[in-house]
Amino acid sequence: MLTQIDHIGIAVKNLDTAIPLYEKLLGCVCYKKETVPTEGVTTAFFKCGETKIELLAATGSDSAIARFIEKRGEGIHHIAFRTDNINSEMLRIIKEGFKLIHSEPMEGADNMMINFIHPKSAGGVLVELCMEK
Amino acid sequence: MLTQIDHIGIAVKNLDTAIPLYEKLLGCVCYKKETVPTEGVTTAFFKCGETKIELLAATGSDSAIARFIEKRGEGIHHIAFRTDNINSEMLRIIKEGFKLIHSEPMEGADNMMINFIHPKSAGGVLVELCMEK
Repeated sequence: MLTQIDHIGIAVKNLDTAIPLYEKLLGCVCYKKETVPTEGVTTAFFKCGETKIELLAATGSDSAIARFIEKRGEGIHHIAFRTDNINSEMLRIIKEGFKLIHSEPMEGADNMMINFIHPKSAGGVLVELCMEK
Repeated sequence: MLTQIDHIGIAVKNLDTAIPLYEKLLGCVCYKKETVPTEGVTTAFFKCGETKIELLAATGSDSAIARFIEKRGEGIHHIAFRTDNINSEMLRIIKEGFKLIHSEPMEGADNMMINFIHPKSAGGVLVELCMEK
């Protein structure tokens, strides 16, 4: 079961310029920066109600975020839904006909186990599933 | 002040195919469909925690959603933040250097007064401000 939207992921070129921009926009301060080597990103988090905004900057030109920005420019990259049981949710999603990117949950930012639904099977939206560790 | 993420707007080609897809993905049913003539869209809403998912389909080829899909395909279109006072929030946003699309709040879907921040001034993200009427 998906219980809430955990965060919205936004691809940015440079965290040093994006963090002050989003602090002004959201009217709150970035509470955490974290690099996720397996995803090739450095992230910055903001809280807004029960949901978070996650800025994502590429750590190298081979990062998925670098390719996304090259193709589409900076902007909204994914929606992450929180679940209490990522393994049963992965099974439910597969049964419903969606395609997952990873066969097993991976380590994500902000103390989460994560997986993604392929945007081709979800109306062009990159959907992340995440569960707190 | 922005109190929470009110909804995520997703551009879709056809609500008749998109609604059952998102019902399967989210594991919940669409609770409302509504046409907003001033925006040239028909919308469909789903609840997920305190946030909503809003599907947007164009009502004609001159709709901003039709142009978005032609350029980028189906996918995430905007993030809407809720505020208790849209007029004071519009003033705060302008003072912070962002550009608004409308000079006055407009009628939106789901009983809201809305405005948008231009994506060029907000890191490529189309940000909606909304306040319950």
